Amino acid sequence: MIIATARSHGVRTYAAHNGILGVLREDLVDTGKESAATLRDLAHTPGGAFGSCRYKLKTPEADPAAYARLIEVLAAHDVRWFLYNGGNDSADTAMKIAAYARRAGRDLVCVGVPKTVDNDLAVTDCSPGFGSVAKYVAVAVRETSLDVASMAESSTKVFVLEVMGRHAGWIAAAAGLAAQQADDAPHLILFPERAFDEAAFLARVKATVERVGWCTVVASEGVRDAAGRFLAESGSRDAFGHAQLGGVAPVLAALVREKLGLKVHWALPDYLQRSARHIASATDAAHAAAVGRAAVELALAGHGGMMPVIARSSDAPYRWKIASAPLDKIANHEKKLPPSFISRDGYAITAAARRYLEPLIRGEAYPPYGKDGLPRYARPRLLRVPRKLPDWNGA
Amino acid sequence: MIIATARSHGVRTYAAHNGILGVLREDLVDTGKESAATLRDLAHTPGGAFGSCRYKLKTPEADPAAYARLIEVLAAHDVRWFLYNGGNDSADTAMKIAAYARRAGRDLVCVGVPKTVDNDLAVTDCSPGFGSVAKYVAVAVRETSLDVASMAESSTKVFVLEVMGRHAGWIAAAAGLAAQQADDAPHLILFPERAFDEAAFLARVKATVERVGWCTVVASEGVRDAAGRFLAESGSRDAFGHAQLGGVAPVLAALVREKLGLKVHWALPDYLQRSARHIASATDAAHAAAVGRAAVELALAGHGGMMPVIARSSDAPYRWKIASAPLDKIANHEKKLPPSFISRDGYAITAAARRYLEPLIRGEAYPPYGKDGLPRYARPRLLRVPRKLPDWNGA
Repeated sequence: MIIATARSHGVRTYAAHNGILGVLREDLVDTGKESAATLRDLAHTPGGAFGSCRYKLKTPEADPAAYARLIEVLAAHDVRWFLYNGGNDSADTAMKIAAYARRAGRDLVCVGVPKTVDNDLAVTDCSPGFGSVAKYVAVAVRETSLDVASMAESSTKVFVLEVMGRHAGWIAAAAGLAAQQADDAPHLILFPERAFDEAAFLARVKATVERVGWCTVVASEGVRDAAGRFLAESGSRDAFGHAQLGGVAPVLAALVREKLGLKVHWALPDYLQRSARHIASATDAAHAAAVGRAAVELALAGHGGMMPVIARSSDAPYRWKIASAPLDKIANHEKKLPPSFISRDGYAITAAARRYLEPLIRGEAYPPYGKDGLPRYARPRLLRVPRKLPDWNGA
Repeated sequence: MIIATARSHGVRTYAAHNGILGVLREDLVDTGKESAATLRDLAHTPGGAFGSCRYKLKTPEADPAAYARLIEVLAAHDVRWFLYNGGNDSADTAMKIAAYARRAGRDLVCVGVPKTVDNDLAVTDCSPGFGSVAKYVAVAVRETSLDVASMAESSTKVFVLEVMGRHAGWIAAAAGLAAQQADDAPHLILFPERAFDEAAFLARVKATVERVGWCTVVASEGVRDAAGRFLAESGSRDAFGHAQLGGVAPVLAALVREKLGLKVHWALPDYLQRSARHIASATDAAHAAAVGRAAVELALAGHGGMMPVIARSSDAPYRWKIASAPLDKIANHEKKLPPSFISRDGYAITAAARRYLEPLIRGEAYPPYGKDGLPRYARPRLLRVPRKLPDWNGA
């Protein structure tokens, strides 16, 4: 949407390959070489077509060479508007570059664009990406629970689904949307915001199996014990004796099997949940398009150091619009699940959480499918802008 | 479809609750109490609405009381047609009851109905359920690979997806459909039909990461080493020192991390894959409806001991029709992936496999969604048929 909007304003767009690394390395993709059809397809293609990175930009004081290089590369290619897309770390990167450019008196407008499945960006009501992963986990709970319910009499009685969200329980909370009435799955949600209590957990699973016949548990990957240790790291050892890679679900499954003697299955969908464009929320897709468009408009209007945000004016009917906020109110302010969204017993979501979450998963935004039965995702050409500068070995 | 077809013929249908256990226990659901809307919704609802079981019926010689009870319950409720739905074990159950009823001179027509995501039923070209799980895994590979590709430069380089199929590699093979051109994911498929060779596997992963930048591995849960041991049981230990519950993916991930030093993620979707009605294949949905209808017609025509099967007459254009086969040609004949479907190097599917698999995932058959953004799955009333017999404690 950013590229198409810029194009509609007659502005050329280069995409930095692999985020800020692409700027540092002068590795820029000329989006002008992509067809209009490819740009359209990008709107329903998961992943980051131009690559992304895990790279924490230091302060200008700690790494002046990096900032000098960024400015040099952007100037060499006459880049006047710099848009940076992502979660908290990316907002931090955009904020630092905006501040540096301003202090250095450069003619560069830096705008952040919100996008993270973690939903932990401050100020914005929600983050594009979250609504779709929320829909994915709610659908997964509803579907798998029908499967478990049908087998429970003589087979699996407990199912544990591990979802993303290492620091905040937004995705785990969304699983709660699957329940429509009493004793619907999920029967327990384990939030990273609540310390894990083994005895209480086991008692609750046991009581649920006795009452309902089976039990679905949703666990955030970030669940910790009272001492603050991640459960995922507390349990199993791999073939080499090292702590197992990730996996709170197998730890919980082992507990249920050993302590309660119940047959248990577990699932860990990992990247499947966050790349599941096939089950995207239409609300989320609309948010993503709107912040992209707004980011270009903010940039062209010269509003540097800002980020477009989603502002909700009503839950029911759901009403929202785009507003904007300074990056320094957003970067490095991790938004946790509010306590009012977690039930008193710590294992479910409240009505307030449901009012917040439900509009975000509404509507289906299916990608087009080919005759081969698979989604038609974009294959951009990724042609590079000719380089003008010598190599740089700083990143 | 079975219930609706029987209803259209003026025949009442009772559903045994939890499969054959429901007959033994005289626990029968009166489907006549379900609305036409519920029956329509059942066609797009995952899981077994009337419950299922894991229960291996012995031979009449080994357990004469069970057979006497089955006949007694069916006679008490004037059941004249007995349809039994499932995979190999269910076909075996249907076959045994058909043979027993025939020998006992009972007026009972027993027909099997094919349904298993494992696709390992003999005679039928494919089994209803498989096409949808095949579509799920192919879509999952395509989507997650876009995610991995975008991060690979500075984060995860290897992704391992574990799929179902303990004895036959049909589901793993379906993942191969995600690849359209050279070096597309999946880069390696590990089939249960091929012994795992650790050195060759690691060399292949390493070469793929060097050439492509990243690597997606799809592993069947049933992968074994040359000595026939399941990899899933060879590796990790849980917190209690017991072999970890399932999970070939974490074992492979640990290998990649330890031996190659590459950042790796893994996913184990477990029941998510087989209950994912939201991404069902339209071809599969058509197969399921057709075998249901045909089973009722076989039964009403008095063709006991049979199963309707899917007969393919052409790959391209894809053409199929319903035929039928005796249950004793199907029960206990596990259909493995043919050697001609696995590439010479053992890590990919062949063109022949693609010709077979691709039509099965074609078309989308979305369930209807509610305003809450979730699929509208049936909630049958499950009202029981009044019991006529005393309790039975044999099962």
